[in-house]
Amino acid sequence: MKNNVNREIPDKILNEYHYEDFQSTDFLNPVIQRVAPKVTAQAGPSKVVDSIKQVVHDTVKDGMTISFHHHFREGDDVFNRVMREIIDAGYQNLTLAPSSLTNVMNDIVVEAIQKKTVTNITSSGMRGSLGDAVSHGALKNPVIFRSHGNRARAIEAGDIKIDVAFLGVPNADEMGNANGMNGAAAFGSLGYALMDAQYANQLVLITDDLRPYPNTPASIKQTQVDYVVKVDKVGDPDKIGSGATRFTKDPKELKIAKMVNDVITHSAYFKDGFSFQTGSGGAALAVTRFLRQAMIDNQVKASFALGGITKPTVDLLNEGLVDKVMDVQDFDKGAASSMKSSPNQQEIDASWYADPANKGAMVDKLDVAILSALEIDTDFNVNVMSGSDGVIRGAIGGHQDAAMANLTIISAPLVRGRIATIVPKVTTVITPGDSIDVVVTELGIAINPKRQDLIGQLDKVPGLPVLTIDELQQKAEKLVGTPKPLEFTDRVVALAEYRDGTLIDVIKEVKD
Amino acid sequence: MKNNVNREIPDKILNEYHYEDFQSTDFLNPVIQRVAPKVTAQAGPSKVVDSIKQVVHDTVKDGMTISFHHHFREGDDVFNRVMREIIDAGYQNLTLAPSSLTNVMNDIVVEAIQKKTVTNITSSGMRGSLGDAVSHGALKNPVIFRSHGNRARAIEAGDIKIDVAFLGVPNADEMGNANGMNGAAAFGSLGYALMDAQYANQLVLITDDLRPYPNTPASIKQTQVDYVVKVDKVGDPDKIGSGATRFTKDPKELKIAKMVNDVITHSAYFKDGFSFQTGSGGAALAVTRFLRQAMIDNQVKASFALGGITKPTVDLLNEGLVDKVMDVQDFDKGAASSMKSSPNQQEIDASWYADPANKGAMVDKLDVAILSALEIDTDFNVNVMSGSDGVIRGAIGGHQDAAMANLTIISAPLVRGRIATIVPKVTTVITPGDSIDVVVTELGIAINPKRQDLIGQLDKVPGLPVLTIDELQQKAEKLVGTPKPLEFTDRVVALAEYRDGTLIDVIKEVKD
Repeated sequence: MKNNVNREIPDKILNEYHYEDFQSTDFLNPVIQRVAPKVTAQAGPSKVVDSIKQVVHDTVKDGMTISFHHHFREGDDVFNRVMREIIDAGYQNLTLAPSSLTNVMNDIVVEAIQKKTVTNITSSGMRGSLGDAVSHGALKNPVIFRSHGNRARAIEAGDIKIDVAFLGVPNADEMGNANGMNGAAAFGSLGYALMDAQYANQLVLITDDLRPYPNTPASIKQTQVDYVVKVDKVGDPDKIGSGATRFTKDPKELKIAKMVNDVITHSAYFKDGFSFQTGSGGAALAVTRFLRQAMIDNQVKASFALGGITKPTVDLLNEGLVDKVMDVQDFDKGAASSMKSSPNQQEIDASWYADPANKGAMVDKLDVAILSALEIDTDFNVNVMSGSDGVIRGAIGGHQDAAMANLTIISAPLVRGRIATIVPKVTTVITPGDSIDVVVTELGIAINPKRQDLIGQLDKVPGLPVLTIDELQQKAEKLVGTPKPLEFTDRVVALAEYRDGTLIDVIKEVKD
Repeated sequence: MKNNVNREIPDKILNEYHYEDFQSTDFLNPVIQRVAPKVTAQAGPSKVVDSIKQVVHDTVKDGMTISFHHHFREGDDVFNRVMREIIDAGYQNLTLAPSSLTNVMNDIVVEAIQKKTVTNITSSGMRGSLGDAVSHGALKNPVIFRSHGNRARAIEAGDIKIDVAFLGVPNADEMGNANGMNGAAAFGSLGYALMDAQYANQLVLITDDLRPYPNTPASIKQTQVDYVVKVDKVGDPDKIGSGATRFTKDPKELKIAKMVNDVITHSAYFKDGFSFQTGSGGAALAVTRFLRQAMIDNQVKASFALGGITKPTVDLLNEGLVDKVMDVQDFDKGAASSMKSSPNQQEIDASWYADPANKGAMVDKLDVAILSALEIDTDFNVNVMSGSDGVIRGAIGGHQDAAMANLTIISAPLVRGRIATIVPKVTTVITPGDSIDVVVTELGIAINPKRQDLIGQLDKVPGLPVLTIDELQQKAEKLVGTPKPLEFTDRVVALAEYRDGTLIDVIKEVKD
């Protein structure tokens, strides 16, 4: 039996892991009994402990679930320190439940898997040596991939029960009041980590900057923190920002960015008070630049910009073109450093950003979302997780979540090298085609047939060829041919949840 | 059997209401499984409903627990509107669980009691016609009095389960993002209400100022809110502030304030980085004025000021004499309006302020607290709840909580009219003598004998006569004589919890 995105999930998997098959992008109005942490009361006077080794000894036990955030991105200096102590102490059967895993974490997680320190992982994604190892069957149990909003939902519902959260912060006081805005390793919003801070039974802060008590503003509060560890360094400032603060000069990317902008500005959503999420990377920054000009030319202002925030988006705020920036993470130093001085750049947690199981997430109010893709198929389903070789090399991030926007645009080149982006059937379905409205490539756009309104709005725009998704797929196939089908074993190495916690697809072990 | 403050709590009460007797001011380090709300998911687009009548109909059922906050104080225009609809709709057996009850709420609560709409109440306190009615046995079940910190503890532990919270706010957007800082009825910190927002199953915001989406800063978040009701007016700005923004000119109050200041400045705690809570009222403002001068003269700066905040305290922040103001409520317009422009005036919730059952409350870091009293007895036990006629006319507020300070000073006149403040035995024990360090009256001070260190520091200060508490009591008795003992029936009309949730005293029905 196939689910609603035409994927056959083995019954064995549904039963063993207690999943329901993906049904619909509509979450409806369920009543959900939330869970809450076990709290060990204390009155201070100080929570500072000597070393990570000591705090690991005091908190971790075999079989526990431990968590981290990925706000330091490739500049993270906390994850490896903590995992080193955990591996060396010989713990077994841990579940690793970070908000995501960046490349700097890959090798030590592979080591932890090999030594059976880690036997379960849930994450937004993974890449590099870790994705490779998991795709080849290294981990005992299947990885569970969850979007940022779904991770918040899973934590609130008790699907993820965090025993110990190890959170690196660029500042904290002796009681654990901390934020992401100040200090040498500042990264801005603590959005994803705020879930761990609220729900973990035990919370360890690791910082290189102990500040006088009480440290404010306190995004993480002393009421949530058990231990504070002072180390020499929590992150490399140069690698915390993504670096991509300059607009692309790639003509193909620029062409796509201009067409994305044309789609937005010719849609009915482009009017005073609209809202958008553009994401990061050179192409996204180019869209932001085109959009800025269009807003000025048409005297249109946005009510809010959402998501991972970049400097160009903050510039729109400062120019008065955007009223509010709703900030779950910052992709560069410019965005990170502006938060502390701008009351209109509001830090939001992952639940507020994108969780479908609360009383209203920001993504539900979003007009325009621009998202990327590794593959899109002729049902508009999107893969952002597995590569053309079937190996895991991606992350859901906020993809499924932001696709709830009124106008969800996938921006992608038709082909990458010798590999088609528009395909008959994606390797892994992450975001269902039902939530995708327009696909923009350098050779033209395709509009989801269920959006006849958009077809009407965009059909006659000069320089914006409207094709069917099948036509785009055929163009791609003509350029690069038909690849040899991928070969997998029957073993499931990863489960891809939809944002509501149902199972949308599985990833199998690659056959070499 | 008597408890540790020498009170005999009937076994029947302990058993029927599942209480433990008060034991100690030490909370130790229990592990507490917290509770969490039941959440009904929704995605908007708007939560605005037409009327309070409609939202009451959609949310309230017989037997439920409903809550309110008291941040509008005597200017509250929300409580009466909501209670009117609830009474008129004929609901029965509700538990009323506001953060406190102000005088403007008295008459309608009496009516709700008479009509059996309300059969249980838990509050910080009550006064006037309501205190009188309860003291004369009007309410079906005993009122439970809890401090602000204990209310937070009780909500987190599930002792108070709020079915519907009705929270008035001076601004909100259509999804429920709100703060207390902006709008005609601004009151500053939402500190007490933040507990309700986090833990209530259903949350109704009532506002007179609907703002564009998204409204920031959001102290209450859309993820917590079910309904938003727009009304013409939520509060009377002139009555929201306590009015007491001028220093007292009463010579007796001034004398006490000066002596309080002498106690502080001659104690070992008066040094750079110390912290304090002074409270509200003309006498407290006078202490703040004396303390300000002492800080300037001695080049001493404070790390933080805590609690209910007044304009003179905010002035200390702006003068650089205080680094941070940790703000759970604002007593006047000056304090309320400064929060939005001062990043060092941090809004804190009631748990962070004072809950003993979290990972560290602000009160545990407090050096100096100045508190008031209706009565103090020769064991230093304090009554802030029942009057000299035995009638309920007070509130615990943060009294038990702030008494955890290193130096807790009770500031009170020796006698009020023909009534002694220092008595052999207080009518009701609210704050145990174990947590009181110094009592300051216009005729001298008394130091708790367990604080020999303070006796050493304060014994030889000019103009600061150190007496024993018995000597103070005898002086009072000499002035006003021995009152006729109060007469009560055997019926218990109110239970006074200590901040840890044990039972410290009961209040009985007055016999007329």
